[in-house]
Amino acid sequence: MSSVILINSFEIPEGQEDEVISYWEEAAQLMRSAPGYISTALHKAVDENARFQLVNRAEWESAEAFYAAVQTPEFIAFAERNKGKYHYFPGVYTIIRNDDDLG
Amino acid sequence: MSSVILINSFEIPEGQEDEVISYWEEAAQLMRSAPGYISTALHKAVDENARFQLVNRAEWESAEAFYAAVQTPEFIAFAERNKGKYHYFPGVYTIIRNDDDLG
Repeated sequence: MSSVILINSFEIPEGQEDEVISYWEEAAQLMRSAPGYISTALHKAVDENARFQLVNRAEWESAEAFYAAVQTPEFIAFAERNKGKYHYFPGVYTIIRNDDDLG
Repeated sequence: MSSVILINSFEIPEGQEDEVISYWEEAAQLMRSAPGYISTALHKAVDENARFQLVNRAEWESAEAFYAAVQTPEFIAFAERNKGKYHYFPGVYTIIRNDDDLG
């Protein structure tokens, strides 16, 4: 099975960015030992008017591996501790078009 | 200057996905000949409940190169033709954390 890409976009209220970065760091530490984890990268917007100031992009061996990683007791406890604190929009994706399709 | 990453997330009403893919293809064709363009990839959500069913990710040599590419007469005409049709959230990003920072 080919790998998938998690993209998680964060809406960040003024002044909360450092806190969200710490949250990302803790989440990334939990994720990186999970089976099927490949890599992660936290993206920061160049333009302060971008709707999503931080975007996480991670690669996983499969969607199932990612879904399993967020169902571990450790991760559930982490999520419960941070419940409602941050506003983000995660999705698991596959690439359906790239430069090779542009002819 | 190091490269930047464009991430553009599309909110897609039921049944509009093929139309947005065609829109992406036309935009990508316009972009790929612009100075500073590196690559692009259109991502489709695995889960139909994801807020953003399509996400474009492109690499550019600099934020300025991307901003210049969307200011050409050709691209402005394309944007005018499609004005208000689609709902998307673009941002230009740099990576501020990755696996090497997780210790």
